[in-house]
Parts: sequence; structure tokens; C-alpha cells
Amino acid sequence: MSKNIKLNMSRRIRRTPYTNKVEEHGVSDFTVVNHMLLPKGFKNSVEEDYWHLSKEVQVWDVSCQRQVQISGPDAATLVQQLTPRSIKNMETGKCFYIPMLNENAGMINDPVLLKLDDDMFWISIADSDILLWAKGYALGLNLNATIVEPDVYPLAIQGPKSEELMVSIFGEEIRKIKFFNFRIMDLLGTKQVIARSGYSKQDGFEIYFKAHKEHFNKIEMGEKLWDTIWNAGQKFNISPGCPNLIDRIEGGLMSYGNDFTSENNPLECNLEKYCKLEASHDFIGKEALTKIQNNGIKQKLRGIIFDGNPCKATGQPLPIFSNNNKRIGQITSGIFSPRIGKNIGLSMILKDYWDIGQNIFVQMLDGEKRKGTITSLPFPE
Amino acid sequence: MSKNIKLNMSRRIRRTPYTNKVEEHGVSDFTVVNHMLLPKGFKNSVEEDYWHLSKEVQVWDVSCQRQVQISGPDAATLVQQLTPRSIKNMETGKCFYIPMLNENAGMINDPVLLKLDDDMFWISIADSDILLWAKGYALGLNLNATIVEPDVYPLAIQGPKSEELMVSIFGEEIRKIKFFNFRIMDLLGTKQVIARSGYSKQDGFEIYFKAHKEHFNKIEMGEKLWDTIWNAGQKFNISPGCPNLIDRIEGGLMSYGNDFTSENNPLECNLEKYCKLEASHDFIGKEALTKIQNNGIKQKLRGIIFDGNPCKATGQPLPIFSNNNKRIGQITSGIFSPRIGKNIGLSMILKDYWDIGQNIFVQMLDGEKRKGTITSLPFPE
Repeated sequence: MSKNIKLNMSRRIRRTPYTNKVEEHGVSDFTVVNHMLLPKGFKNSVEEDYWHLSKEVQVWDVSCQRQVQISGPDAATLVQQLTPRSIKNMETGKCFYIPMLNENAGMINDPVLLKLDDDMFWISIADSDILLWAKGYALGLNLNATIVEPDVYPLAIQGPKSEELMVSIFGEEIRKIKFFNFRIMDLLGTKQVIARSGYSKQDGFEIYFKAHKEHFNKIEMGEKLWDTIWNAGQKFNISPGCPNLIDRIEGGLMSYGNDFTSENNPLECNLEKYCKLEASHDFIGKEALTKIQNNGIKQKLRGIIFDGNPCKATGQPLPIFSNNNKRIGQITSGIFSPRIGKNIGLSMILKDYWDIGQNIFVQMLDGEKRKGTITSLPFPE
Repeated sequence: MSKNIKLNMSRRIRRTPYTNKVEEHGVSDFTVVNHMLLPKGFKNSVEEDYWHLSKEVQVWDVSCQRQVQISGPDAATLVQQLTPRSIKNMETGKCFYIPMLNENAGMINDPVLLKLDDDMFWISIADSDILLWAKGYALGLNLNATIVEPDVYPLAIQGPKSEELMVSIFGEEIRKIKFFNFRIMDLLGTKQVIARSGYSKQDGFEIYFKAHKEHFNKIEMGEKLWDTIWNAGQKFNISPGCPNLIDRIEGGLMSYGNDFTSENNPLECNLEKYCKLEASHDFIGKEALTKIQNNGIKQKLRGIIFDGNPCKATGQPLPIFSNNNKRIGQITSGIFSPRIGKNIGLSMILKDYWDIGQNIFVQMLDGEKRKGTITSLPFPE
């Protein structure tokens, strides 16, 4: 029913430097992340886009990955308090995936942290106002740090041909950028951060395009960047794209707000490797997280494979039941996987039912119950 | 072009206890506020809804007005630091419109504050994560306050017949609730906060429906509430509705993210009456606001009346130029007013051009320039 609901446009739902371009390419759906438009579909089906992404190369407007820039003498101190992951040995040029917790150890975001310098970080955020969180905390503590949202609009190049495409523009140096590293590269007369990263399980890059006000109008410059990628991409069969639901679920890539919320702690999200408690490292939520570690968790994010007709993205959670009809979780992101040949989903599953191979039932929106099985994440190849 | 873009649905864009109902009523557009669906249109045009709202009564799902509940020994201290408006003499049962500022005196929200008790407040927010802001600040200061988002889903009853409709459900006591006051009333066996308030220039009420988990499933209870209003509303010609753009602009009601952002200070937003500086009252942004008061502001929110064919909601800002072709602002919310018989808009206008009666030009999205005039706010009757 909600499939044909229009998105009402207003200035509050911010456009990006690439929005004109994605409209020209026939974007069909948007969602809203961090008060900004994120394209969610073009002319092809999710399945057609999935096959294209797995074989070719795509350009994605992911400007909604807003940056929270933290700089100044206390920058590193502040960043370290914002996450249980240690950044003690983090080098400039690295990207770290970091859980961020509230005082109850509830997840409030799962961004990528970029270290630009010893006293300069970007936090590339999922959908919550970490700018306000970090500012509020720093003000309360009276830290000497400057926190702003810079004019940065990430553009992602994703797919197996992305390296060749990027080499054709930036030269051979691109090949030296390893996964979750970035370099500062020349682009249209400016210096730009380019990382090997992205919200797919394919190879790919993210250009953290920063609008340099002294030189260019940001839309003009953004469109030049888009055109540069687009033109160079012609010989690689480039398409406009966006984070692909099939690829993301298969790869076990979580989405904040969908697969986990502030009601969930990082251990439930399989992030224990970023939660090693050290006496020398204080962070928000440490006391609560320690308690949770000691008591053990009650649920955990798992994969589910389930039967029946190919399932489109539902847009709403699907309840999961045990054999004895107890509600044990809900599929928060689900869709048909053409590679696996079955429907798949992500779900927080109660402890007694989270073993791999456990049989469960998925209740569809129309009430139909379908047989399913718990799997590990990412989904088996 | 963007008029027919679909909104991609997912759990991250939260449904409300009334979403099934607004879908049954044929909602055509949604927007996203505070990670939650806000209906933006039904079967009628904005203009038809405007006339209905000004003569009859409507029920609006405004659950996206999330509450930030602050309680505990330091609750009042914290709330007072979050706004330049003094709450020293605020009584329980009152609603206060409060600007909230960051450290630069930039606006980060313009919520309504409800005082439920000396140590218990709700902040009913516009579109930014004040939950994170308040929590971060309280954690940094180590205040003894508990900050949560309670299970509260406001439902608005707006229009000149709203009092009669509410009396038919709650009895004569409803008439005693004055504008920007609330009372705790019995509703379907629960106690609920009902305020005389709402995001229109008509009379109206907001029921701050709180899901009491011990009694009901929140969707079941929300739908019961909706049906209660809907059934009682039949004899008052009730319609499903939503904040109406024409009514809102005519009334000079600002929208955070549209008409002002964190780039604007409260004096630019005509909120000087809530910004009286007192030695005894410290708040975030006070130092910056003092400087701005001393130096004077450079722009101010004004109304604009402009010529040409009736203008639909544009979805994008329209640049404003002076006679000598200098850019002096942009219309951030604009539409045709059937009452005034001209197009109207809200705009931050540079100081040299903000005098009432000043002639300006509005540039439409297709490039056409139209003559216009600066007016006061709200628009003259």
C-alpha cells in the first residue's frame, strides 16, 4: 500500500550537489537520512541493480553520510570518549568503523571515523544527529574542540570495475589505497579525500568531495565531479545506483535504525571486537557495557533464510516465531536473494533460538507464516 | 520533476500508532521528521484542505513531534540551560515555546516545553535529535537527570470546530483549557495530557497520547483513540489532515530546517522576546547571543507577497533579488494564498532590504523573475 506514497519535498529535506544529476538519471525513490535525500532506486529493479553492481561499476550519491568534523587540542580525547573502540594506535589516513554508545550502552550510531591529522577527525555518520551529541558532550565537559558539519558530500564508486574506473581518472596511485584507508588526491584543481570503502560487499571507493567555497559553487563543482566519473565510466558500463538491499543483506551490512537502534547494545550487533574494555580507556556507556558483558546478552543479530515466493523489500518488520509460537524477533531488512535462491533477512533473535540451523517461522504482512532457518552473518557464499 | 518521487519505506522511517489509519484515509504524501512519518497530503489539494481547516475540524497524526522527557533532581537546571527563555516562573500545566541554541547562538530547534511537574518536563521537538543534544550535555556536566524518549504520540485536533468536538468526548472541562495550557484528562481508561495548541492559526488541541504498556498494544490503543475522534467528528464534518502550508505561511509559523537552520540566530527569527539576558540565567549560547545583540543582526525573517500565476509549493528555495540584482535572500516556504489572492512566502532578508514595503524580485525555479514586496509577519489580515 505504501509503495506509491510520494515524498513531499522541502528545504528541510536537503538536496545534495548531485540531486539534479540523479533526477536527470530518473531516480524513482528517495529516502531521508540525516535530513538529506538518499536515492533508493532508478529505472531498474533492485534485482537488476544487484546484478549490475556485482559485475560492473556504479556511482552513488551518498552525501547523506554527513561528516562531523572534530578538531582542536582535545579532539582525540573527545573522539576516544565517543566510542568503545580504541583509537590509540590509529594512524592518519585510516578509516575505523566505530560503534557509538549512549550512557546505557545503547547504540546511537555506527559511523566510519577518518583520522585526517592528530587533531582532526571526520565521523562519517549513519542516521542520527551526532553533531548535536558530540557538541553537547564537549560543551558539558568544556573541552577545547571545534565541532562542525563541513561542506562534504561523499560520492561512492562501487562495483568490481571501480578500481579500473578510478585509475582512468586519478592514475595508478589509486591502486595503492588499501581497504579502509584514504589518501588526499588532486581533483579538478582541489585536494580531496578518497577512501577505499563503501556500503556494499563489492570493491569500491568513496570520494569525500569537499566544496571549496573560494573556488566554486558547490552544485557546479559537484556536478563537474559527477560528470567526470560518469564520462570516464562509459567504457566500464557505469550506472547510477544506490546502496542495494540484496547486496547489503547478503553481506550482513547492518543499517542503523533498521536492524538495530538505541535499544540495542554493540554485543547484540556482533561488534564485540570493538568493545575490548581497557582500564586506560574511558568512554560513554562503559559502565553499562561492562555490566552487559558480565551478565551476557539476551539477543543477537542473525541471518534468516526463509521459504515461499520471492519477497520484495517489505518496508516493515516481519515478526519471527518459534515452533511453539513464541515471538522471538523480527526481520528488520528482508528480500529475495537471487544468488541464494531464497528469501533472506536480518533479525535480532532471542538467545534460546539464535543457534545456527534453528528452525523458525516468518510471518508475512498478510499473515502467512513461512518456514525459515537461522544462519550466520554474512550469509554463506 | 521531484513531485512524483516515491518515499522508500523502511523501519528506520518509523511508523506511528496512526499510520494504518492515515493510509486507510488515502494519504498521498509523507515527509520524514525525527525519523518518523508525517502525512503531508490526502485526497484534496492543499487549497481545499486550507478552506476545510479554516471552517471545520481535522485530525492530524503529528507523532513526529517526539518528546524528550527530562526528569530528576537536576531536570529544571538542565532545561533552563537549554534555552534563553526564562522558565523561572513557569507553572505546571503550562506550554512554553522555547528557542534552543548551540554554542554559537545558532538555532538547533524551536520546540514546545511542557512542565508536567517541578522535576518533570517534556520537550516537544521539531526536526533534530534533541534527545542526543540534551543527553550529551547532561553527561558532560554529570547532571542528575534522566533523559528518554517516552512512548508518546501526539494527535492534533485543529480547526474552529475542535472545541465542540473535544467537548463531545471529554465534556465541558475542555473549554477551560486556555491556549498553551494543558490538563491531564481521562481517555479510554488512561490519563492523558491534552493541550490547547497546534501547528495552525486555528483553534485546536493536541492529545499527547502515551502508550501505557501495561494496558494496551500501542497500535491498538492509538487506533482506538483515532476512531474515538473520527466517530465523534462525523457531525462536525471532520477530515484527516496535516499541517497546511497555506495556513502556516499566512500565520507566520516557521518550520525548523525550512525557514531557519543552525545558521540562524533567534533574533533573526523574530524571537527577541524569548531572549532577555539576565545575570542569574546561564544558558548555552549566551555569550554568542550577547555579542550578536550588541552588534545587531544582518538579516531577519520577513513575509513576501509576489505576483504571477498561483504558485504551488515549490519544494526548493526561490532566490530573492533587489532592484539592482543583488541576491538578498530566498523564499524558503512559498505558496499561493487564496485569501490574499497573491503568492506568499517566508524569507530571511538582508538588513538594507527588510523594510516593510520594499520592492524585490523573486526568481522562480524556471528562471522567471516576479515582482514582490516585503511584508510583516504574520501576513496582514
